[in-house]
Amino acid sequence: MSIFNVELKKVVDDTYDIEIGYNLSDTLVSDLENGLAGKIKKFAVITDTNVRDPYALPICEKIKHAGYSVDLFVFPAGEKSKSRETKAKIEDAMLKKGYRRDCCIIAVGGGVVTDLSGFIAGTYGRGVPFINYATTLLAAADASVGGKTAIDTPLATNTIGLFNQPQKVYIDIAAWKTLPQRQMASGMAETIKHACLGSEDMFEFIEENLDDIYSFKKFACEYIAENNCRIKYNVVMKDEREAGLRETLNLGHTVGRAIETVSDYKLLHGEALSIGMAAQALMSARLGYMSEEQAERVIKLYERAGLPTRIPDYIDREELVKKLYTDKKVRDGKLRFVLQKGIGATVEFAPGVYAKPIEESLAREIIMEL
Amino acid sequence: MSIFNVELKKVVDDTYDIEIGYNLSDTLVSDLENGLAGKIKKFAVITDTNVRDPYALPICEKIKHAGYSVDLFVFPAGEKSKSRETKAKIEDAMLKKGYRRDCCIIAVGGGVVTDLSGFIAGTYGRGVPFINYATTLLAAADASVGGKTAIDTPLATNTIGLFNQPQKVYIDIAAWKTLPQRQMASGMAETIKHACLGSEDMFEFIEENLDDIYSFKKFACEYIAENNCRIKYNVVMKDEREAGLRETLNLGHTVGRAIETVSDYKLLHGEALSIGMAAQALMSARLGYMSEEQAERVIKLYERAGLPTRIPDYIDREELVKKLYTDKKVRDGKLRFVLQKGIGATVEFAPGVYAKPIEESLAREIIMEL
Repeated sequence: MSIFNVELKKVVDDTYDIEIGYNLSDTLVSDLENGLAGKIKKFAVITDTNVRDPYALPICEKIKHAGYSVDLFVFPAGEKSKSRETKAKIEDAMLKKGYRRDCCIIAVGGGVVTDLSGFIAGTYGRGVPFINYATTLLAAADASVGGKTAIDTPLATNTIGLFNQPQKVYIDIAAWKTLPQRQMASGMAETIKHACLGSEDMFEFIEENLDDIYSFKKFACEYIAENNCRIKYNVVMKDEREAGLRETLNLGHTVGRAIETVSDYKLLHGEALSIGMAAQALMSARLGYMSEEQAERVIKLYERAGLPTRIPDYIDREELVKKLYTDKKVRDGKLRFVLQKGIGATVEFAPGVYAKPIEESLAREIIMEL
Repeated sequence: MSIFNVELKKVVDDTYDIEIGYNLSDTLVSDLENGLAGKIKKFAVITDTNVRDPYALPICEKIKHAGYSVDLFVFPAGEKSKSRETKAKIEDAMLKKGYRRDCCIIAVGGGVVTDLSGFIAGTYGRGVPFINYATTLLAAADASVGGKTAIDTPLATNTIGLFNQPQKVYIDIAAWKTLPQRQMASGMAETIKHACLGSEDMFEFIEENLDDIYSFKKFACEYIAENNCRIKYNVVMKDEREAGLRETLNLGHTVGRAIETVSDYKLLHGEALSIGMAAQALMSARLGYMSEEQAERVIKLYERAGLPTRIPDYIDREELVKKLYTDKKVRDGKLRFVLQKGIGATVEFAPGVYAKPIEESLAREIIMEL
């Protein structure tokens, strides 16, 4: 009978910097002093038990020394902490400590810390600013560009979350040296994925310089840190809300995410992704989008990086096939896969469409072989 | 050592319509057929146990009849359901039913349903569209404009949530008749608050036509539905993210929210707000921002509307004073109140500043008197 029009049109500027370097905690503090968080004087540093002593505590000390109020919130390291329960515990601890909306969250750690903290920041008091201090290659590769934050639920990974852009991201390459080799390799899984979907040059660089990356040579680490950002940024810029092109970043994740869940997180995200990348390479070759040799090259690079490319025996393969249907790309009950086109590109199946409907029989066939 | 700039500037258009009328379920379905939710064919209708039979089920039937896929998700009626637990249960139920990102949520009910459903929509798969079908005056007054969604935590109300704009809002005035009188009065508490902060004309209209509102006369119900939207919109448009002016909508809520929590939700939101409005009126008069007579007029209108204006005996007043510090307006540990300037306006204490720091002693004094 009467219509009231709520006109809400506005320009949103979420522009931010990613600083790539060595030992950036002093830079972080001087950025705060120079107004990175505006007038905010109260900081909540969120981290996990692994990162607490080497990075988060020293950062807290420096922030306090600069005259700000700061508290540290620590949760148990591991993907299992990326849960509703951890989110609630940290929120309640912040509420108890009197945190209101005039605070800023600083995430110090790997991908679990940055994913979880960005989600907490997005909903705490309906949103407070946050800063990411990434201490792992995986966080540098995966969580630094794109604003995706989330938690896992028992039914599937990254199901609940939001898009939320940080004030700034720090990628501390010096921290990579302190990572267990398994964690470093897990980060390489996303890095190689970026090369596979976006740059044959980068793929060749990794083939040639893998040892230099793993021995933390400056030129090699800087190259992959910068190129991870560049490739992801090129995709995200064109499709911030994951309507089309951004789905290409999901390469290897259809099978990867499912294995990660079915393994009950015994496999790290990158390890599960590595198997998922092998699966999509075989599928891409089977469907004629890349040669058998190219698929072999992809699988071989993952193996050289110290990552699994076969499904472990303890995984129930039929359960895995079922789990594929929890993938976010599923539409109208049909599985959809992103596929590689040679090395350095993905297949655009139709204008703006990068995920192809795949028969369950083909997916099952490849899962049974792997 | 190297800085990578992520430039994310964009125009966001969250414009939407609020349709005010009688029995709007057919309008909703024809809007869906005309593309309100784009190409989406899968709908999750969220409601509570009170609204299920009279409104949500018939709406589901009509949506299904129009050829769409639809499921109903029902939670127990009451503010206690506005919790993390209810959010998780509905999300898990949606995941189990195979809901992915290609769905739209339709909230059918009062403020608890619309607040909770808007929050679920904002984080399900990192965000799906949602539509509000408001069946109560409170939802029409409070939840229809502004995009605020949230859940309560044991420590405070509306602490976790986000700003999320619906595709469209329906205000079904016919549904008001089916409300228990206590619920209708609770909605009047927000309605009178809008008049107090934004329109002396509206205040006088309510003084003159309260009986016509309570006997659901068309002209009276339409007037308050439209003016609630108008006043809230005028505020929200100027300050979408609650940085300054929008805090005026929080009039009466400093004490109101605290009482609501301390009463363990025995008081409805509007009942608690009514007491909070009395508290702020006394405070505004004490500080010289309105006359004693004006404060009396405000309190008297709340009483005539069938709402409490004194703190019930079972409330521990000292606990209430402590609880004030969980208010979102608290800054640097100081209480801040929005105060009325005469009738129809609020006090602007400094340019753009509408919440005034108040000594605990004054707040305690008024709480002890009430």
